[in-house]
Amino acid sequence: MLNRFIQRAPENFLSAQQIKDVKAGRRGFLAGAFAAAVAGAQAQTPAGDPHILNLPAHSKGLGQPVAARPYGLPSAFEKNLQRRESPGLTRVGAASVSFAPLQSLFGIITPSGLHFERHHQGWWDIDPSKHRLMVNGSDDSLLKRPMVFDMDEIMRLPSVSRMCFIECGANTAMEWNNTAVPTVQYTHGMLSCSEFTGVPLITLLEMCGADLKRGKFVLAEGADGSGMTRTVPMSLIQSGEVLVAYGQNGEMLRPENGYPLRLVVPGIQGVSWVKYLRRIEVGDMPYGAKDETLHYVDLLPDGTHRQYSGIQEVKSVITSPSGGQVVLQKGFHSITGLAWSGRGKVKKVDVSLDGGRNWKAARLEGPALAKCLTRFNTDFVWDSKPVILQSRAVDETGQIQPTYQALRAVRGGRSIYHNNAIQSWLLGENGEVKNVQVG
Amino acid sequence: MLNRFIQRAPENFLSAQQIKDVKAGRRGFLAGAFAAAVAGAQAQTPAGDPHILNLPAHSKGLGQPVAARPYGLPSAFEKNLQRRESPGLTRVGAASVSFAPLQSLFGIITPSGLHFERHHQGWWDIDPSKHRLMVNGSDDSLLKRPMVFDMDEIMRLPSVSRMCFIECGANTAMEWNNTAVPTVQYTHGMLSCSEFTGVPLITLLEMCGADLKRGKFVLAEGADGSGMTRTVPMSLIQSGEVLVAYGQNGEMLRPENGYPLRLVVPGIQGVSWVKYLRRIEVGDMPYGAKDETLHYVDLLPDGTHRQYSGIQEVKSVITSPSGGQVVLQKGFHSITGLAWSGRGKVKKVDVSLDGGRNWKAARLEGPALAKCLTRFNTDFVWDSKPVILQSRAVDETGQIQPTYQALRAVRGGRSIYHNNAIQSWLLGENGEVKNVQVG
Repeated sequence: MLNRFIQRAPENFLSAQQIKDVKAGRRGFLAGAFAAAVAGAQAQTPAGDPHILNLPAHSKGLGQPVAARPYGLPSAFEKNLQRRESPGLTRVGAASVSFAPLQSLFGIITPSGLHFERHHQGWWDIDPSKHRLMVNGSDDSLLKRPMVFDMDEIMRLPSVSRMCFIECGANTAMEWNNTAVPTVQYTHGMLSCSEFTGVPLITLLEMCGADLKRGKFVLAEGADGSGMTRTVPMSLIQSGEVLVAYGQNGEMLRPENGYPLRLVVPGIQGVSWVKYLRRIEVGDMPYGAKDETLHYVDLLPDGTHRQYSGIQEVKSVITSPSGGQVVLQKGFHSITGLAWSGRGKVKKVDVSLDGGRNWKAARLEGPALAKCLTRFNTDFVWDSKPVILQSRAVDETGQIQPTYQALRAVRGGRSIYHNNAIQSWLLGENGEVKNVQVG
Repeated sequence: MLNRFIQRAPENFLSAQQIKDVKAGRRGFLAGAFAAAVAGAQAQTPAGDPHILNLPAHSKGLGQPVAARPYGLPSAFEKNLQRRESPGLTRVGAASVSFAPLQSLFGIITPSGLHFERHHQGWWDIDPSKHRLMVNGSDDSLLKRPMVFDMDEIMRLPSVSRMCFIECGANTAMEWNNTAVPTVQYTHGMLSCSEFTGVPLITLLEMCGADLKRGKFVLAEGADGSGMTRTVPMSLIQSGEVLVAYGQNGEMLRPENGYPLRLVVPGIQGVSWVKYLRRIEVGDMPYGAKDETLHYVDLLPDGTHRQYSGIQEVKSVITSPSGGQVVLQKGFHSITGLAWSGRGKVKKVDVSLDGGRNWKAARLEGPALAKCLTRFNTDFVWDSKPVILQSRAVDETGQIQPTYQALRAVRGGRSIYHNNAIQSWLLGENGEVKNVQVG
């Protein structure tokens, strides 16, 4: 592996002059090595005295003080890194999507400022001192003690934190029609991963005396104008993993993500993670809400709609190199991407460089948690010939990410939601990477 | 546990009128339950028609569109949550500290905007296209191929991501003198935890042909005006865990934390995590730099200075309830805090409510990674009598967090750095929490 670096990058070696400088003493060389970096600073530096190094301003002056920004922000050089709306995707920006820039993210944590957005009637910054959560039963026998909680009451209860992914059920939707949207931000960017903190919903239900046997379903209802309501099966809640969450990546939820309270339903599509959560009702049958009968359903080849198909099945995508990026040089590159499964841990990710004929296992980054993103990496030496880059994930339950051919054989071509097919990127001779469908 | 909630919180139960409302139909009750939340909205709502619910504006109107903030920010209601400088701690804000607000953070990830700061000559936003990293040897025999890398060259190499804590060696320094600074933000807030992404330093050293046997030490040098230089033992680097990092919590490092490149040295005090990293030199002896001979040393009772004591030993602190907070009601509360060790995983955290006579194991949150923060929680029912709250961590190597008495018996009372003693908070009858030293 090291030989590759050395072969690919003669430009990394020192010039004969630089090596001479090194031998003449470190300080002189330092000035040389950083010459390119100090063009701006040099202009303001009095020349002449050879004992004064032409260092850049930041190596000589006094910088900004601590707490100059009590709440810090990214570098000004990163301002192009944004979540972005897909122009024309919807008619109203308040009922639309912004996509996370997966192509430029590292590791598994999504910075909260770049978390994808999906609003059904826009986002609000709700005063937490006025927000309430009601817990009731669809009739008295299903929940003995209906209660209304304020945020202080919720936040003093025993809490848990958990890292997990959230993916919109409509992520990668355009690819059903082979639209080949150009970048991974737009193909897969309705995906984020955070450490969420909150109270297990089961704790609240037990406090309220819910009948956990007859009460097989729970309705979650949001406080925003869309009146989002979703049914969650009690079996998921009883496992303890469904949270009434207020924390995200160490701080309070962001307004765009449901501040001050949202449901967290690990492994299940994002629409069930009801934002601005104001009510939980225990019932004995699914609620058949608008967003689980008309939307977020799968039109099958026989003309029927599949409902309540909320588990986000095993999936992966290479985030770099990916569509819209340009590989500038042949030689060594690191291929990196994300894998996840709503059923548990990712067990394996294979990468193919030849359109799916040969596969090689990628390295999985720890901690590789259940229902959480897992970062994978593999090495790649590009000889400047066209290459098709693909990744294929396998989860701990044995589910394998399907090809488009295999997925369409079962689901047909008229779906919008729940596309977990293998993504293909074509790296062309000119270094440009494009979205293609293969197999 | 549930009984406690019920006993403590009669205000959570529905009133007789509310129960009557529930029985009369859910919709009517909803209006009642949320009456307190809609005072503002009500003022603008035409009254009269009983069929129109007096819902708050956010439950009726169209909210903000997606990507209204391409890079999102916390709620306006959270603006008091800031990293803060300790007034008067240093004379120059560019050579000072801002502390992370541990009392209000959840889980283990520190939001990058609230990461603590420690600058020696202020922070800079360095143009990454001009930044360079030089790797050289103190003589030709220790490193065969000196190289200068730009950011593109570093970022195409195989990378790893890892969650780990960073703690300034001077964290909790004021407590050596029993200064009893008032809040956990100021006692322990030079502590943060992120997912860092970068290239293992060993990869760069191997590329450059470093002599890993004779080259027992590495000097890391920063590009800011403080000329920060620190010695790092090759044994740590050979384990692969020392990173030349550019990523933090999924995005590029923040300027205050060394953008575009810093060293990550898991388990070791923050000063060794050289920011704005511009040079790595391989040598055959420790470098004895200013910040490892004059500063970051421990004055022992016999008058000698202990140097190179950079491992952050096992430590924990209760972050809530903590100094400066007020517990408003008796009854159930959740005690939560953080534990960490520079030697590996946290194995156990005990909590005492009686000044250290009796201890009870707290619940540890997963994933409980090595050299990473671990969140602990335990239940607490307050009867409004004074209580001393303490936590004591044990790591996987068997190291136990010491009392002040035990620590001073070895280290004396003249240290500044490396205080890992058990922290005590006194919860008084009036609900106020104060910093006290016990045992």
